[in-house]
Amino acid sequence: MNVSRLRKDAEAIFLAGVKAVEPAQAIRKHVTLKEDRLTVNDRTYNLPDYENIFVIGAGKASAAMGQGVEDVLGERLKSGVVNVKYGHALPLQKIQVNEAGHPVPDEAGFQGAQQIADLLKKTGEKDLVIFLISGGGSALLPYPAEGLTLDDKQQVTQRLLEVSATIHEINAVRKHISQLKGGRLARLAFPSTLISLILSDVIGDDLDTIASGPTVPDHSTFAECLRIVKKYGLMDKIPASVAGILEKGARGEIEETPKAGNPAFERTQNLIIGSNIQAVKAAKIKAEELGYNSLILSSSIEGETREVARVHTAVAREILKTGSPVSRPACVISGGETTVTIRGKGLGGRNQEFVLAAAIEIDGLEDMVILSGGTDGTDGPTDAAGAIADNQTMNRSRELGLDAEQFLRENDSYHFFKPLGDLLITGPTYTNVMDLRLVMVG
Amino acid sequence: MNVSRLRKDAEAIFLAGVKAVEPAQAIRKHVTLKEDRLTVNDRTYNLPDYENIFVIGAGKASAAMGQGVEDVLGERLKSGVVNVKYGHALPLQKIQVNEAGHPVPDEAGFQGAQQIADLLKKTGEKDLVIFLISGGGSALLPYPAEGLTLDDKQQVTQRLLEVSATIHEINAVRKHISQLKGGRLARLAFPSTLISLILSDVIGDDLDTIASGPTVPDHSTFAECLRIVKKYGLMDKIPASVAGILEKGARGEIEETPKAGNPAFERTQNLIIGSNIQAVKAAKIKAEELGYNSLILSSSIEGETREVARVHTAVAREILKTGSPVSRPACVISGGETTVTIRGKGLGGRNQEFVLAAAIEIDGLEDMVILSGGTDGTDGPTDAAGAIADNQTMNRSRELGLDAEQFLRENDSYHFFKPLGDLLITGPTYTNVMDLRLVMVG
Repeated sequence: MNVSRLRKDAEAIFLAGVKAVEPAQAIRKHVTLKEDRLTVNDRTYNLPDYENIFVIGAGKASAAMGQGVEDVLGERLKSGVVNVKYGHALPLQKIQVNEAGHPVPDEAGFQGAQQIADLLKKTGEKDLVIFLISGGGSALLPYPAEGLTLDDKQQVTQRLLEVSATIHEINAVRKHISQLKGGRLARLAFPSTLISLILSDVIGDDLDTIASGPTVPDHSTFAECLRIVKKYGLMDKIPASVAGILEKGARGEIEETPKAGNPAFERTQNLIIGSNIQAVKAAKIKAEELGYNSLILSSSIEGETREVARVHTAVAREILKTGSPVSRPACVISGGETTVTIRGKGLGGRNQEFVLAAAIEIDGLEDMVILSGGTDGTDGPTDAAGAIADNQTMNRSRELGLDAEQFLRENDSYHFFKPLGDLLITGPTYTNVMDLRLVMVG
Repeated sequence: MNVSRLRKDAEAIFLAGVKAVEPAQAIRKHVTLKEDRLTVNDRTYNLPDYENIFVIGAGKASAAMGQGVEDVLGERLKSGVVNVKYGHALPLQKIQVNEAGHPVPDEAGFQGAQQIADLLKKTGEKDLVIFLISGGGSALLPYPAEGLTLDDKQQVTQRLLEVSATIHEINAVRKHISQLKGGRLARLAFPSTLISLILSDVIGDDLDTIASGPTVPDHSTFAECLRIVKKYGLMDKIPASVAGILEKGARGEIEETPKAGNPAFERTQNLIIGSNIQAVKAAKIKAEELGYNSLILSSSIEGETREVARVHTAVAREILKTGSPVSRPACVISGGETTVTIRGKGLGGRNQEFVLAAAIEIDGLEDMVILSGGTDGTDGPTDAAGAIADNQTMNRSRELGLDAEQFLRENDSYHFFKPLGDLLITGPTYTNVMDLRLVMVG
């Protein structure tokens, strides 16, 4: 298959992957209403047992998820509140949508989180609460512990990042200085019944990690958090108010995050309604429909973007040379989310940088296309979802006088691909299950 | 399959891969003698047409390759000279073996290269020369251009590495300040007939790159070399003698490296007798014999070792979770050669570092084994070929009080695996086709 066909097919395959995790559709697939019986995966709720059904949520996709819930439950919904990122609101009938700051939480997010907490405080044993979690749900549900400001929380995270604390350590501390994270939202909802519907944007779909686990038992403790902060010598560097809370908590003077066995979790159903592997699998089906031999590499790819790109192009070279791991025409699919260590001052995102690094590697090889895109339609601080390149991209860039290596050094993938017309532009998709990458060999 | 079975099988699969590229066997497979007819792949040489058969060579595996040639040609050989790395000599009947410095060339290598050049100068139209090239062949065949010292050449390479010149640029310059690289050995051998038998240790098996291409046309020019050195502002930083040669060459006062169309190449046959893909394929056959569903990821994997390791463990996670890209029991095989950016002061090699980074990622997962080893039996400046780890390695390391993350930060994989008994020790294998990596999921 020639390059123009490969490019067209690559875009179609990417979009098929995104469509499979479209939030409203994912909700309708997992949540069905038949007469008075609401079925959520393997559990059934008899609606006449409940006085009110409320919807709460936080995350980039949570308005779109709200549409799905309204489609299913319509007039049966009492009311609701969801926090979404600026620009991600959608018109809803029963659910109020608050736009708020992401990735840096802001006052609007805090106010929305307070509304959600107030709603939960009022609910009782006869109420059913549906909680819609999606990517960005942590930053979009900011509710600092008593006596702390948003800025205090931010500072702690920043200090921990600076000393290269592990993500496990950072999450442990964050959960202990928040009123809703680390299972505390479920405890606040108790004794109502809570259904948590989750669109996962996390490698491995670990419920404890997604949005800092508001509805699952927390394994970490105040004592552990104090040890972490001391280990990195940060006691004098974090706000005194935060240090005070950790010390008090470690002395047992503040209630711990809820642990396994807490009755709140008996009334909580956590269900992942969409995740990267579903997008990857749908992409594979589409690739096969279009006539490609398709292979899923992994839905949990992580690591430094340009290095990950080189592994992908090594697979492409092998396909060209020996037909392993799949024969041509081939479509190798991977998912997950890579990272970029910023060294330059350019504009781009992990997906565009992936494609730039790959384009350099496939320079002048046979017919081949590389696509990488964020399923949310946004890659870094740009208007592109990602980029698409082929074995002729480098030739075209040289004709325009663009030095690919230099753009890569500067992390400036956006300005490399824009003049080439090789940006992948989808607009907001209102979903988010990390990224999809395609290696197509014609 | 349980971990102890997986470990045993992993070692057997690795060794089967190495065995397939054992030099003498690879020679015997591609070079056969029947009565007076010597067949080398698709060409046949009628031996009575030749007065003498000489053998020359350079590379870590070249003595072992010499054994293969002596097995085939025996008394028909006149004489020969090969340069090998210290410790890589083997007893040969007709061929003199010189041990020399690698990776830093030394006087012994230079003397051996002079012997080889002297031999070639004496050969004529009626002579047949068999040239045995293997990994390290560039450093082991040092013959600086007239007026230069080994140190001059080293300095130029060092300066180019410091400014991050591309490997293409470095090779172009090196070829132009050497008497044997860049096709010049073939020209020196002319008008004899030259058979170049190559054990490739290079990604993509590019003849122009292996040992700096002594027997293939060179695409680069003196003018290009001068531009490269000026582009990086190195004219005053390289030895004046080198700058002088490049300037003279660019003015046409020194003979260019031989280009395509040079008659020397019409009398030259270049044949790759062993490369990484052959080891990878043999490993796959062994894995299947042992009952594994096996998949070749790529034989040309390169990139920063720890990041490449994370891509491999992402594949392992996917196999566990969804059975893609192959179902359990699975053996995913990759080849090629990664790089390590040294940040710490520890001891290790790319294979041991790969396994250490992977061990951290698979901590506590289900039965799983990761193996990575150099096919030459040597990984970095250590006595190990690589290492082998499983999902319990991290537990065992914690019991011994070893902090894996700390060892990884210090590039100290050898001292992590040694107390665990997880080093892969084979001793010298006398071959070299880069590395083999295995991801086994039971």
